[in-house]
Amino acid sequence: MADLFIGIETGGTKVVAGIARVGSGQPEVVAPPIVVPTTAEPGRMLDGLFERISATPGFAEVAAAGIGSFGPVDLERGSILPTPKPGWSGFPLLAEVRRRLDVPIVLDTDVNAAGLAEWRWGAARGASVAVYLTVGTGIGGGLLVDGVPVHGLLHPEMGHIEVARHPADAFEGACGAHGGCLEGLTAGPAIRARWGESGESLPDDHPAWEMVVWYLGRGLAQIALTVSPEVIVLGGGVMTRSLHGRVGESLAAALGGYVPTPPVTAPRFGSRAGLMGAFALAGMAASR
Amino acid sequence: MADLFIGIETGGTKVVAGIARVGSGQPEVVAPPIVVPTTAEPGRMLDGLFERISATPGFAEVAAAGIGSFGPVDLERGSILPTPKPGWSGFPLLAEVRRRLDVPIVLDTDVNAAGLAEWRWGAARGASVAVYLTVGTGIGGGLLVDGVPVHGLLHPEMGHIEVARHPADAFEGACGAHGGCLEGLTAGPAIRARWGESGESLPDDHPAWEMVVWYLGRGLAQIALTVSPEVIVLGGGVMTRSLHGRVGESLAAALGGYVPTPPVTAPRFGSRAGLMGAFALAGMAASR
Repeated sequence: MADLFIGIETGGTKVVAGIARVGSGQPEVVAPPIVVPTTAEPGRMLDGLFERISATPGFAEVAAAGIGSFGPVDLERGSILPTPKPGWSGFPLLAEVRRRLDVPIVLDTDVNAAGLAEWRWGAARGASVAVYLTVGTGIGGGLLVDGVPVHGLLHPEMGHIEVARHPADAFEGACGAHGGCLEGLTAGPAIRARWGESGESLPDDHPAWEMVVWYLGRGLAQIALTVSPEVIVLGGGVMTRSLHGRVGESLAAALGGYVPTPPVTAPRFGSRAGLMGAFALAGMAASR
Repeated sequence: MADLFIGIETGGTKVVAGIARVGSGQPEVVAPPIVVPTTAEPGRMLDGLFERISATPGFAEVAAAGIGSFGPVDLERGSILPTPKPGWSGFPLLAEVRRRLDVPIVLDTDVNAAGLAEWRWGAARGASVAVYLTVGTGIGGGLLVDGVPVHGLLHPEMGHIEVARHPADAFEGACGAHGGCLEGLTAGPAIRARWGESGESLPDDHPAWEMVVWYLGRGLAQIALTVSPEVIVLGGGVMTRSLHGRVGESLAAALGGYVPTPPVTAPRFGSRAGLMGAFALAGMAASR
């Protein structure tokens, strides 16, 4: 038995929606996902998205939907919190999707969603405590306890934890809110601000990566001491440079044997993690 | 309906055991709890403890037991991990209690136990994500998600997270493993090492407390960004100085409005948190 689910991933630059068949294994997309640019008129953007997805085979039989959204999100109300993204502050995303789609829907952060996909079908399968961290244009973290995304007062915002400074580092940090938080020291914009060019153009032996590895190890140590994850899955653009092994060593060095070092692994789904996560959220919606 | 439970709290200097009646409300201890010093011969210590507790009224009708232990603990195996405490490294605490008491038993860390008591009957009642932190001779943290203590690979060890240095602070820190981690900067031994006398003898307007408040706010910000707690309960000897309001302000300043600030509150049970937590664990054991 397999159900048809809609997954929607709302990102900073694009929104992706797809329909997949989900059974006991990982989702099988039934047609190429629809991609639209994230505009300053999210209501009209959704109109365009639904016009197209309603023409996708299987749309009429969809049983549930999941939305993985950029944050910060008010998960109680299903709306976007104040954000620099024009047109999105206060947008009632869940209600606006519900108005266009009459099935059970679950909304969560993109990183909780991606973590859930990794927990169900990927690199964090069955872990009692799993952390998913994306390191790209920003850093976001998701926390899964027994396969349930943790929310609390808001939702985890792991990107902005503080890390001690590398002894040789005088860079002031690139986070608008905190300067030298983990995101302000290691995400894409920090790499560009520090070295004058984007990470994509830097060779593998550039000292930038050693710095990224050092800080990520320090940051993951904070997270490991706080939640004791069984596995940490690191995704996002920066991590496509295959730094996982070195970050794991950096984490072990930062923990210094005080607690066991959790494995640091690449996600199974890579750039598809957001959409796969949305399908995983749809699965939660369907089973409620 | 109420059941009789045994609660055992194994601490660094003493072990406390009691029998309580637990119904829908908070535990009612049926006799004064038994207190024995923590010795280097834990097996013999348990013999003495059980000799006395088996003479307590109600012992024969006990339905379940809970043990809240100092860490680090291997919660899978129920044994104490390598520890500087003589005689305790590798001690199979759960099996040794089970040999003396044939009822369902749950073992967890003292701080997870204390957090669970606060979640069931106290300051963290019903919170979806709750953190309990004790600041005393050390710093330990417990994490509860929907009322279930989180373990993961080991268990949270929040005392050893890193915090940025106060601009006016040249103290190298007092943690044997990490120097200036949160515990190394704010726990009792750090206060003594920094100021030359114990916290108990320092007046309320001593600059020591401003430093403690500053660092605890920074440390709690790390935890809040990682797990997004709905409430943070701060117990332990240092917190008997009624610093909760100031720590809450320090936390808000550290978060800088980036995420909502969770309330920082005193525990309901104070120095009884460990034993109450052990009764709460017994409740988990009984309902399995």
